[in-house]
Amino acid sequence: MNKVQQLQSYLKEQSVDAAFITNPDNVFYISGFRSNPHERLLGVMIFQEAAPFLICPQMEIPDAKNAGWSGDIVGHVDTENAMEVLYRTALKRGVSLNKLAIEKSHMTVDRYDALNELFEALEFVQLDDQINRLRVVKDEAELQILREAAALADYAIEVGTKAIKEGITEIEVMTEIELALKKRGVTHMSFDTTVLSGPKAASPHGKTGDRKIQKGDLVLFDLGVIHKGYCSDITRTVAFGEPNEEQKAVYDVVLQAELAAVNAVKPGITAAELDQTARQIIEEAGYGEFFTHRLGHGLGISVHEFPSLHGSNSMKMETGMVFTIEPGVYVPGKVGVRIEDDVAVTENGVEVLTKFPKELQIL
Amino acid sequence: MNKVQQLQSYLKEQSVDAAFITNPDNVFYISGFRSNPHERLLGVMIFQEAAPFLICPQMEIPDAKNAGWSGDIVGHVDTENAMEVLYRTALKRGVSLNKLAIEKSHMTVDRYDALNELFEALEFVQLDDQINRLRVVKDEAELQILREAAALADYAIEVGTKAIKEGITEIEVMTEIELALKKRGVTHMSFDTTVLSGPKAASPHGKTGDRKIQKGDLVLFDLGVIHKGYCSDITRTVAFGEPNEEQKAVYDVVLQAELAAVNAVKPGITAAELDQTARQIIEEAGYGEFFTHRLGHGLGISVHEFPSLHGSNSMKMETGMVFTIEPGVYVPGKVGVRIEDDVAVTENGVEVLTKFPKELQIL
Repeated sequence: MNKVQQLQSYLKEQSVDAAFITNPDNVFYISGFRSNPHERLLGVMIFQEAAPFLICPQMEIPDAKNAGWSGDIVGHVDTENAMEVLYRTALKRGVSLNKLAIEKSHMTVDRYDALNELFEALEFVQLDDQINRLRVVKDEAELQILREAAALADYAIEVGTKAIKEGITEIEVMTEIELALKKRGVTHMSFDTTVLSGPKAASPHGKTGDRKIQKGDLVLFDLGVIHKGYCSDITRTVAFGEPNEEQKAVYDVVLQAELAAVNAVKPGITAAELDQTARQIIEEAGYGEFFTHRLGHGLGISVHEFPSLHGSNSMKMETGMVFTIEPGVYVPGKVGVRIEDDVAVTENGVEVLTKFPKELQIL
Repeated sequence: MNKVQQLQSYLKEQSVDAAFITNPDNVFYISGFRSNPHERLLGVMIFQEAAPFLICPQMEIPDAKNAGWSGDIVGHVDTENAMEVLYRTALKRGVSLNKLAIEKSHMTVDRYDALNELFEALEFVQLDDQINRLRVVKDEAELQILREAAALADYAIEVGTKAIKEGITEIEVMTEIELALKKRGVTHMSFDTTVLSGPKAASPHGKTGDRKIQKGDLVLFDLGVIHKGYCSDITRTVAFGEPNEEQKAVYDVVLQAELAAVNAVKPGITAAELDQTARQIIEEAGYGEFFTHRLGHGLGISVHEFPSLHGSNSMKMETGMVFTIEPGVYVPGKVGVRIEDDVAVTENGVEVLTKFPKELQIL
């Protein structure tokens, strides 16, 4: 069953007349067409039975066709009201529209108002959860892309560690990484590449800056690439010069926590249990107050997607789910360590997609 | 009058109890705090008289203070409902909230629903136009930043033209440009840097790719930087090797159209008149059907902001407005030329912020 058919089944089961999908990540998931329409209207409308259609700016129609969307495409130009174009196209399908599923976490109020005005007595149903549940389990084609994306992230860490030398700035290291990736065809990172050194690594919210890296620093890399529409996300922390006792101690605790959580991954375990597995090790070592964030997050078309792996999420992991595991300890002003892998749940346990070594690299 | 006070005046004039601003560009404009909160809540709430407050993720509070916001800051953490934190904080101000201004082009339906549930009998007013009108006229401090951003764009074009040589790919040229900018401290471009060569330049929607640049190509650069929170946006088209007659003819028409529109800029002229000034020259030369987009767009904190300079916009230009002028002619599969400047309206006419030469550069 393809993705359109899966949504059609959902519409029938829930007695919803149609779904209108406008989140660009979801449009890509459903149609294969990736576009950032900015303020212009981009969406896919799917009915229980009638033929689905994609609506996009007129000038993007060739791109949408090239991307592999074989259904109808309706274009709109800047001088017309795109929502009216949508309305007229939907009417032509001859379906009575009383219940419409939309992504409430994405649709803006002005579009919602426009739909309310155009379609009489429309009831809106939340579609976000349903699409999240579709996207959360990756098929083999998606897994293969995610493996490739993870391999590029591994390569980026390798480039970054080789670039480190006395006096080089964080931004310079970041630039070397991104330049090397561009040469391998990476045009977009999944988020701003982060290189934090010394005490800056102890801020989970720090920004890559002008600080000069020096002997005795831990250097934290957090980065990922967008590859064929899918994201990777890796963190490694390395030592420049011989680490001191506290740096070594913190690193060991985070590594043990990370390995324990990774090895605990299997179908049926809950997000909370995975979070707890890592957190308990860090708490027992006395660093619990310094592990200030969740264990990880879903990964796929979006770099942060459903589900959130935190201590009160009782959702069970299933074969084909892909997410990050990224415990960290941040002793303010002193030591910061985070280790992050991308993992996939397999029938028997776990496949770790990111493969850069995790034992402490001393440069 | 600072920006908070300007919004307070608007609230009083329109008898609106409060404004809740969540578009990150607008939050930056009002508060000086630039953040991308992703799915987390970030906003500024402003009342007629009561003290305004900023709401953001707890861990961003230090950044918000450092950014210069001197009002109250309310943090929220992932385990609580941020909209309820907003509600409780607003209640404490002791203001009866019946009418709330929001950015309908930005607020999502789920937040709208949450506001509707929390605040009883709330009436919503559209705030987008009001903020657009505030942002459209730049003060001297903003103009100075925009000049600096434009100078960095000029430098980028200079680097790009110097990088062109037989066989170099578009992506390689783009990489050289971005690398040079990083060395000058530019961390973010205002949009994906575009380098299009040969027939690809004839697609106004083309993407920088692997095409090898060769003698006889026109090469189109479209790029901009984000500098101190403000954007630049420049396009130049250059010739690699001696251009043929058609390339020269198209270039000349676009240049005449661009110069005419730039020179027509002054307080009181309308967006439509500016568009028409350029369009008429292109139409008279027989290329009218190939100028397929508007003349330009407002420029500031956002790379595309209010107003849109198109043929049916009767809005009058005022001193301090900054926008792009970017006519183009795209003869499909053959020749593409666009020339784009960032301009500011002055009391006496126009200040052109981008300064890279516009006579055809033959490399």
